[in-house]
Amino acid sequence: MVVVKANSSPTVPTNKNSFPCSNGTTLPLTNSIINLDQGDPVVLGTYWKKMSEECTVVIKGSDLMSYISDTSNVCWFMLPEMSDAIKRLHSVIGNAVTEDKHIVVGNGSTQLFQAALFALSHSHSSQPINVVASAPYYSEYQEEVEVVRSRMYQWGGDAAVYDKNEPYIEVVCSPNNPDGTLQIPVVRSEAEGKLIHDLAYYWPQYTPITHQPDHDVMLFTFSKCTGHAGSRIGWAIVKDIEVARKMTRFVQMSSIGVAKESQTRVAKIIKVICDSYQNYGSVESELFFEYSKSKMRERWEKLRAAIGQSKIFTVAKFPKAYCNFTNESSETYPGFAWLKCEEGIDDAEGYLRKLKILSRGGERFGVGPNYVRLSMLASDKVFNEFLVRLSNAKRDI
Amino acid sequence: MVVVKANSSPTVPTNKNSFPCSNGTTLPLTNSIINLDQGDPVVLGTYWKKMSEECTVVIKGSDLMSYISDTSNVCWFMLPEMSDAIKRLHSVIGNAVTEDKHIVVGNGSTQLFQAALFALSHSHSSQPINVVASAPYYSEYQEEVEVVRSRMYQWGGDAAVYDKNEPYIEVVCSPNNPDGTLQIPVVRSEAEGKLIHDLAYYWPQYTPITHQPDHDVMLFTFSKCTGHAGSRIGWAIVKDIEVARKMTRFVQMSSIGVAKESQTRVAKIIKVICDSYQNYGSVESELFFEYSKSKMRERWEKLRAAIGQSKIFTVAKFPKAYCNFTNESSETYPGFAWLKCEEGIDDAEGYLRKLKILSRGGERFGVGPNYVRLSMLASDKVFNEFLVRLSNAKRDI
Repeated sequence: MVVVKANSSPTVPTNKNSFPCSNGTTLPLTNSIINLDQGDPVVLGTYWKKMSEECTVVIKGSDLMSYISDTSNVCWFMLPEMSDAIKRLHSVIGNAVTEDKHIVVGNGSTQLFQAALFALSHSHSSQPINVVASAPYYSEYQEEVEVVRSRMYQWGGDAAVYDKNEPYIEVVCSPNNPDGTLQIPVVRSEAEGKLIHDLAYYWPQYTPITHQPDHDVMLFTFSKCTGHAGSRIGWAIVKDIEVARKMTRFVQMSSIGVAKESQTRVAKIIKVICDSYQNYGSVESELFFEYSKSKMRERWEKLRAAIGQSKIFTVAKFPKAYCNFTNESSETYPGFAWLKCEEGIDDAEGYLRKLKILSRGGERFGVGPNYVRLSMLASDKVFNEFLVRLSNAKRDI
Repeated sequence: MVVVKANSSPTVPTNKNSFPCSNGTTLPLTNSIINLDQGDPVVLGTYWKKMSEECTVVIKGSDLMSYISDTSNVCWFMLPEMSDAIKRLHSVIGNAVTEDKHIVVGNGSTQLFQAALFALSHSHSSQPINVVASAPYYSEYQEEVEVVRSRMYQWGGDAAVYDKNEPYIEVVCSPNNPDGTLQIPVVRSEAEGKLIHDLAYYWPQYTPITHQPDHDVMLFTFSKCTGHAGSRIGWAIVKDIEVARKMTRFVQMSSIGVAKESQTRVAKIIKVICDSYQNYGSVESELFFEYSKSKMRERWEKLRAAIGQSKIFTVAKFPKAYCNFTNESSETYPGFAWLKCEEGIDDAEGYLRKLKILSRGGERFGVGPNYVRLSMLASDKVFNEFLVRLSNAKRDI
């Protein structure tokens, strides 16, 4: 099943709502469709190939059989080593306060986002609470809010223009998907507001770690931390035990917990990363966040060069900031490129489709079709082919 | 966190909505609370310990990283070996037709039940569709239907008394949780009805395999097949590709797929089981379904003896039937015991709580409090202590 947007070439099977798109990895890409629509983070596969043995887990037939992991924890299906690894990782990176907080593990942060909506809404309220995010906002928030048409919460649109005097939940995504900017809450309303901080990209390879967030509900995902998207592991760091309890309850009702095989593997990979930072004698360029940051920097430099050559798109310049983790001043290197078309091209996604590049147009993010989002996390082969097509792009194609 | 129902002893922390309950496994149980409320299937741990090496999986650091598994499949996040293993297992057992069907993998059948509700409902209907099941019905159906108060579907109660002339979804659980009976659809309505067949317990250790079901939507879970509940793997076998596509879409929106570590491990365990049945020279008593069936038979014989001794409860006798898989005639040995109190005891759950046995009362299943459900899948130690307490039970305690 090759998937493109509904209004694309009729020779390609279409399904507007689907996720994947196949890229033949053994064939030359010169004339193929390349998919930068989703953020499948395969860029770091090369690194993990080198570390494959060190990160290996062995799971025996009788391991990990019970539903239950730790009945002393609010999140009773979370393995203790998973919880310990998450706390240790944040302590090494300094990108979230975990002291006196509750960790809730989920099947990706996607599930935890919905768990947080459930926990922060009122079960018996006659009026759904409005869920808002500042545009451009992550394209899936709206669909995840609306999927089963809940009476507890509803999509409220762009946080920047929210002017209802009704309770709301504001989702603050920082660095923001799609545009990489650092975000703070923007709603100006006298009504009761609750916050969900989506920090999926608050890792040193994407942005300088300038402070240690200490918010009520913070969401992270392993997919964007190390690139292990297939493991479906996310976690929430939650201040209020009742919110943590309700989120746990949601994950229980939704999937009776989270695969222990993934938990045990993710805990192992985090251990290897943390050990490498804490053991004297590690080679700096071989450290995970050093490697991945240098990879992201290199990609962004190449992207800016390609954009400069074709002059079809522009992309924001990010301010430099001092990173407390890497001890250097650097730019932001987002996981997505958020491009704006030059005057005269109204449909950025349609323009790229003519170059056989699948992307996600601005309207999915609550802004105009002159914007487009492209993944910066594809394989080298796909990314390099993208650069070739972008460099050679002409206004009229 | 030790969890009992809200009206239990105040010395035990309470949380009505929680799942787990700890049983110290190293301490003698004589005076402990024992938890037979949930169906954590740890009974088969002994078997898997023997098979531990054969079923071992090794997952390297760079394995299974992408979101995507197989873009040629409707269920694009399902590993091909997972799909193959599921089809092979059903072919070996003969407990479901998979030819010309679509498999959708999920985070347990819990997630797939909700995916099926989503797929069989109308997204834009002004009236939610009624979801019904024949009482006594699985206690979680109602909560899963109602968890986020969807406008697409709503709980409609006991299927046997459904008399609305409105579209409905009937959930047919067979063998039924809690009472082990074989079920068929019971709604008599002229309105449009759709069916979900929950076949979680349609495996040879629980019931004779008398026929090969060929329904529109059939749900299975690995938790109850082999006892690997911690893996959170369930699957749906779906006739209509559009329903399969919508279910896949739901799992995508809910968790962007299913942990690949679990998929790869479950595929391996299924392979070992199927190989053992298909390879000449296997020792029959060491075959998985032979072992587990004999274990369930033994437990049911002991249970009936204990019940006969105390005369506080009664339990149904199941008819014998010929099993096409084991080639013998046998009874049903359900994963839960569904007990009815003798006259004079109104609150079966409360009665058992005095014996420090946690169970789930009939009202959660849509019937009276004189019924109670107890897990038959606990560890030997817990199960044997349960038998001691049940055998010695007196009417007045």
